[in-house]
Amino acid sequence: MIKEKSFSVLYRITANSKEEAQNLAQKIAVEQTIEFPPDLVERQSIFDNIVGNIEFAEYGDGQYRYWITYNDGAAGTEITQLFNVVFGNSSMQPGIWVEDVTFSSAFLSEYHGPHFGIAGIRKLLGVFHRPLLHCVIKPLGSTTAELARMAYEFAAGGADLIKDDHGITNQASAPFAERVAACADAVQKANEDTGGHAVYVANCTADGTKSHERALQAKKLGAGGILLAPVLTGFGMIREIADDPLVGLPIISHPSLSGGFIMPGPSGVVMSVLYGIFSRLAGADAVVFPSYGGRFTFTAEDCRKIAESARKHLGELAAIFPSPGGGITEETIPKLAQLYGRDVIYLVGGGIFRHGPDLLENTKFYKMMIQEIYS
Amino acid sequence: MIKEKSFSVLYRITANSKEEAQNLAQKIAVEQTIEFPPDLVERQSIFDNIVGNIEFAEYGDGQYRYWITYNDGAAGTEITQLFNVVFGNSSMQPGIWVEDVTFSSAFLSEYHGPHFGIAGIRKLLGVFHRPLLHCVIKPLGSTTAELARMAYEFAAGGADLIKDDHGITNQASAPFAERVAACADAVQKANEDTGGHAVYVANCTADGTKSHERALQAKKLGAGGILLAPVLTGFGMIREIADDPLVGLPIISHPSLSGGFIMPGPSGVVMSVLYGIFSRLAGADAVVFPSYGGRFTFTAEDCRKIAESARKHLGELAAIFPSPGGGITEETIPKLAQLYGRDVIYLVGGGIFRHGPDLLENTKFYKMMIQEIYS
Repeated sequence: MIKEKSFSVLYRITANSKEEAQNLAQKIAVEQTIEFPPDLVERQSIFDNIVGNIEFAEYGDGQYRYWITYNDGAAGTEITQLFNVVFGNSSMQPGIWVEDVTFSSAFLSEYHGPHFGIAGIRKLLGVFHRPLLHCVIKPLGSTTAELARMAYEFAAGGADLIKDDHGITNQASAPFAERVAACADAVQKANEDTGGHAVYVANCTADGTKSHERALQAKKLGAGGILLAPVLTGFGMIREIADDPLVGLPIISHPSLSGGFIMPGPSGVVMSVLYGIFSRLAGADAVVFPSYGGRFTFTAEDCRKIAESARKHLGELAAIFPSPGGGITEETIPKLAQLYGRDVIYLVGGGIFRHGPDLLENTKFYKMMIQEIYS
Repeated sequence: MIKEKSFSVLYRITANSKEEAQNLAQKIAVEQTIEFPPDLVERQSIFDNIVGNIEFAEYGDGQYRYWITYNDGAAGTEITQLFNVVFGNSSMQPGIWVEDVTFSSAFLSEYHGPHFGIAGIRKLLGVFHRPLLHCVIKPLGSTTAELARMAYEFAAGGADLIKDDHGITNQASAPFAERVAACADAVQKANEDTGGHAVYVANCTADGTKSHERALQAKKLGAGGILLAPVLTGFGMIREIADDPLVGLPIISHPSLSGGFIMPGPSGVVMSVLYGIFSRLAGADAVVFPSYGGRFTFTAEDCRKIAESARKHLGELAAIFPSPGGGITEETIPKLAQLYGRDVIYLVGGGIFRHGPDLLENTKFYKMMIQEIYS
């Protein structure tokens, strides 16, 4: 029985016959919910409210696709439990891929999702037509003064967003509070000097509740955005911080450790679901992923699907920016423009340091290049 | 340069030649730390303190093993960042498996690890020689009254631990506070009736900081242990709750969603590292995993390695209980006894419901069976 508040997961199942696939789909519908022998369930209401409802979708390439629809009795209103129902125990079984997730509008009404999204970030930055340039202060091991100087130069050179490298957290070389205060101040000074609207994005990925504490601290210290790696912190942490009005800043999701789910193998979660749907449902306003053409092995088709998923219609949830990174350079941006279109944040890491000795001039070069490509 | 506070990761690398493997190992040492072109690094101290140090270990089966040693300059003192350094971005590259992690004693001194471990849980329960029997209240969709009745029957029948099913969180069918209070009371009443020392383990896996809040609430409501799924909440949440003296309860780690890392594929983290080392370092006192011989595909060798890893010497960290589950029944326990030995917690889910119509009698049967096998 499918209720008003429900969501559906498309599983791709490897099996030798439709009967075997159907049997496995039925097992998933049980494993992900009651995890209990169905013949021992005493109440019909548990079948009606909790156990997933399977529906054959299609067959192709030796694999069977089934939609399984779960009612909110199983997932409740927490995204952590939603992910648990989508793939928790079944992640440990071979031959099961999560290919898509859809939600009833009643189910989705429990989620605010992104508080900024593409439109909100564009408004915040005052940039309405071109792609955004996102630079990274790095490498880890640099002092706070060095990182703040980079932040100034990126902002003064025209970067729209300047973030901590995702490996810079609270190490002795640049402790969190000291670094965030200095970098936020540096970006503010650059904005005053140039009339720009750049924002500094502080990496708040940390142990347990510290992620949320750091997001609040970052806000107080003048940061303009929050970086979180949801596979490290749990997707629930993004949601909580996104929904906290005392933080009230755009959230950028980083893919660290996500390879466990999205890399090829007998089981997994496709990139468009993990990066597009889950990050967005949690409330990320932009999602970082390694672009094709860089130092990772993602294909153009992978990246097209991620970008599409971030921007597609998803109930009332705001569309969010895809933010390809992982080796974006002056050579690759011209080639990427057609695939990503205008609603994209180019995350430029080491490449921008290589262009020339002056980081501010390098940033101007990248900014102008983007403006020209998209003029 | 290797410093006093450091840790070493054994990576298994798929490559066509030693030169290619060496090159990839060097890239990992960079990607996991500075994520920056080495030729652009301006200070030698960043190489000395941050970039990993690679050392060839062995070749076999077409795969190369390298130890990479990282100083604490990269990982700081947070387990979230430690995991980020071990496998963050490299999780998204093919051909990289994390096979082992070791720590210098100075590095390990930052971690308390398990506060109970095998010895502490045995003392708490007053059971010093035999394996423990761990039962699960389920299925999801049952009411609080139904779950509390099961908890009573398990405890009165002689179960040592009684936990929420990992999918039971805060759904409308049995909201968290109501359920935890009722189940803790039921187990206490059973202890009074029988003179036992059973504990009720509350599932506190939730969104963001709610996991910690629920652990504190569970403690106040009389729970005797905390269940957390670290791949859903982040390993940092286990550590924070384990180290909170206001909680002060044994922590049981659940493997939900961990399949992304441990299942076969081009990249991953072996089971003994994820379940044994990481859960233990975070502070779990017992680690649940799907045993061989049940409804999952883990092999006897997989399970032997997990159990070994949970109990092996690891600096000052307490040894912890392996807790095999995922289809443990009266048929399988006799076969598992030799592999797991005495220091094991048998997690019996649906199987114990099938033995007969009376859950209390079923529990007595399982308890007696374990006592006889290990007498």
